[in-house]
Amino acid sequence: MRSVSIIGIGCTRFGERWGSSLRDLVVETGIAAIEDAGVTGEAIDALYIGNMSGGRFVEQEHIGALIADYAGLSRLHIPSTRVEAACASGGLALREAFLAVASGYADIVIAAGVEKMTDVSSGVAADALAAAADREWECFFGATFPALYAMIARLHMRRYGTTREQLAQVAVKNHHHGHMNPIAQYHTEIKVDDVINSPLVADPLRILDCSPITDGAAAVVLAPTDIASRYSDTPIRILASAQASDSLALHDRRDITTLDATVYAAKKAFAQARLTPADIDIAEVHDCFTIGEILAIEDLGFFPKGEGGIATEEGRTSIGGDVAVNTSGGLKACGHPVGATGIKQAYEIVLQLRGEAGKRQVSDAEIGLTHNVGGSGGTALVHILSR
Amino acid sequence: MRSVSIIGIGCTRFGERWGSSLRDLVVETGIAAIEDAGVTGEAIDALYIGNMSGGRFVEQEHIGALIADYAGLSRLHIPSTRVEAACASGGLALREAFLAVASGYADIVIAAGVEKMTDVSSGVAADALAAAADREWECFFGATFPALYAMIARLHMRRYGTTREQLAQVAVKNHHHGHMNPIAQYHTEIKVDDVINSPLVADPLRILDCSPITDGAAAVVLAPTDIASRYSDTPIRILASAQASDSLALHDRRDITTLDATVYAAKKAFAQARLTPADIDIAEVHDCFTIGEILAIEDLGFFPKGEGGIATEEGRTSIGGDVAVNTSGGLKACGHPVGATGIKQAYEIVLQLRGEAGKRQVSDAEIGLTHNVGGSGGTALVHILSR
Repeated sequence: MRSVSIIGIGCTRFGERWGSSLRDLVVETGIAAIEDAGVTGEAIDALYIGNMSGGRFVEQEHIGALIADYAGLSRLHIPSTRVEAACASGGLALREAFLAVASGYADIVIAAGVEKMTDVSSGVAADALAAAADREWECFFGATFPALYAMIARLHMRRYGTTREQLAQVAVKNHHHGHMNPIAQYHTEIKVDDVINSPLVADPLRILDCSPITDGAAAVVLAPTDIASRYSDTPIRILASAQASDSLALHDRRDITTLDATVYAAKKAFAQARLTPADIDIAEVHDCFTIGEILAIEDLGFFPKGEGGIATEEGRTSIGGDVAVNTSGGLKACGHPVGATGIKQAYEIVLQLRGEAGKRQVSDAEIGLTHNVGGSGGTALVHILSR
Repeated sequence: MRSVSIIGIGCTRFGERWGSSLRDLVVETGIAAIEDAGVTGEAIDALYIGNMSGGRFVEQEHIGALIADYAGLSRLHIPSTRVEAACASGGLALREAFLAVASGYADIVIAAGVEKMTDVSSGVAADALAAAADREWECFFGATFPALYAMIARLHMRRYGTTREQLAQVAVKNHHHGHMNPIAQYHTEIKVDDVINSPLVADPLRILDCSPITDGAAAVVLAPTDIASRYSDTPIRILASAQASDSLALHDRRDITTLDATVYAAKKAFAQARLTPADIDIAEVHDCFTIGEILAIEDLGFFPKGEGGIATEEGRTSIGGDVAVNTSGGLKACGHPVGATGIKQAYEIVLQLRGEAGKRQVSDAEIGLTHNVGGSGGTALVHILSR
């Protein structure tokens, strides 16, 4: 398997993009990534597109060919593959693109992710998102995503003493980071009291514990490391790519306060990269709900199990802390267009490793990690990137 | 890239499977394939699942993890990836699984395809299928899939003299083949007059020109060729795997009587396999409508452009002809559970190459081809298999 690097990146502004359709968003970001990499259409060997639910959100499947078409590549007839693993669809597209280059089957490959979520009512959107859980054994009985994560939060609080305030600190930190990110959906700073007094969604989770409904797209261009310097002055190496699965339904898990898919994917990724969690300077993790970030920083090995809440409270995951987590603002403040999130995470890590992250730049960042979760943990993807 | 072989196969009965859910169908076929290959769960490195629209048909996304879960593999946390390219999703799963093994990243990989289509009304199903076309520029203006293929048929008839009877001959042949296939949805033989007098769908296509709405699943197990004989007495080599894309909308095509995606994928596949169309003994091609098979046998290079109709009429694509096309009954008579079709095609070719196809066995078949199309030709996949 060959070494693979990221030679170009693009990301749209995240938010309610009512003036842009799904195809507009992905073409906007694709052009940005191609220009950043300085490649021509003719050089591109394949596309991988992460999208969770074009079928439900915009009544469009066959997203791979659609994107190749609207990117002006259909005349070249290049292979274009859509992959889906719910909210981890973007991370999965990055992994499949990585494997295509690593295997030697392709040289220049684009991994993109997109979701257009605001063309439907919030009820329809919530129902579409619920299709990431087990429809027959969870949703049919009334479970929604906030409810599933609320059950996880309750048990985590009871077993480990995680507090309501510590959950809120995740949102406060991510809004602080996000307000320095030009593409973020929200640029408002918030306080712990704002979170605790915001409307209840599923006890103990409140509206400011939840990531929003978002339109957006992101893209990265991959190449074999040995030719990456032809395209980029600062190619970023992908040191590891790992994927793991788990039961879709929470009730089939060994323990709902740990996402085993994250644990397995992280172990594989650290082994591939020959690194440990202590080596990671920056991480974009899957904070679909505030409890999600606490699980992530524990399950990835940054902090012992049960100590994610206190670590957050002590600022150890803020810019300047032990590991800067979600400098983009995370899913919470940057926004969560589900199919795009995994690629946006890579976009942010590349910006940081290049030293192009502006006001939120982490000084001397050398190694970064992305962590993208599907559903309540049925799928997890972990990538490790290096300057 | 390593040589890859198919060491196990499974396929459910196709039809209206009201007693089986999506997960039931894919587990049924997965167990059959694993038993056929004689592998254990622990040996499996990865799953690739083709599914077009679980979101629309059964309100379930995150199909990869769901299948790993219900196959009893979630405790092993193996990677499971859903891919989608409309009606070519199955062929795409086969290709991604092939690349995973060929690249050396994985050894034993399962490629499966599934669609559960009869839980919704036929109107909802037709609308879900229309998501394979360009929603904004075709469906919005009233186009349905039969209408798109009807336009292709009309121009093909006008330009090349293809007759109404020749279209019907495709259905007659495929029903004849299908009535010998135990898994087929239909076991009725039909005559040319039956087709011509069947209810009109989109002129000139009538109901017996159209593939049906079907539930079903199929799976194949892949391994590196150098260890395939440990598992199977008759491993079948995958000599080539190729994928190509084209514009989603018909009106953006160079010529609607040729599917350029098929032409490009076939060229790549024949080059990889170092073979020509004349070397193919059996082929499973994408006859979603009767005109689809005529396009396919021309675009794959079996017959010159415009001569697909006459070749069919002369029996050159029947069992015993130049190339036996759709011995399974094709999409028309065997059925078309869209995400499963590409894998069922490989299942049929493997049965034939093993000499296990019963009454419809093609004598001395050595090389077979599968051809799977997404939408009206936005994606095409071609695989070449050898005994």
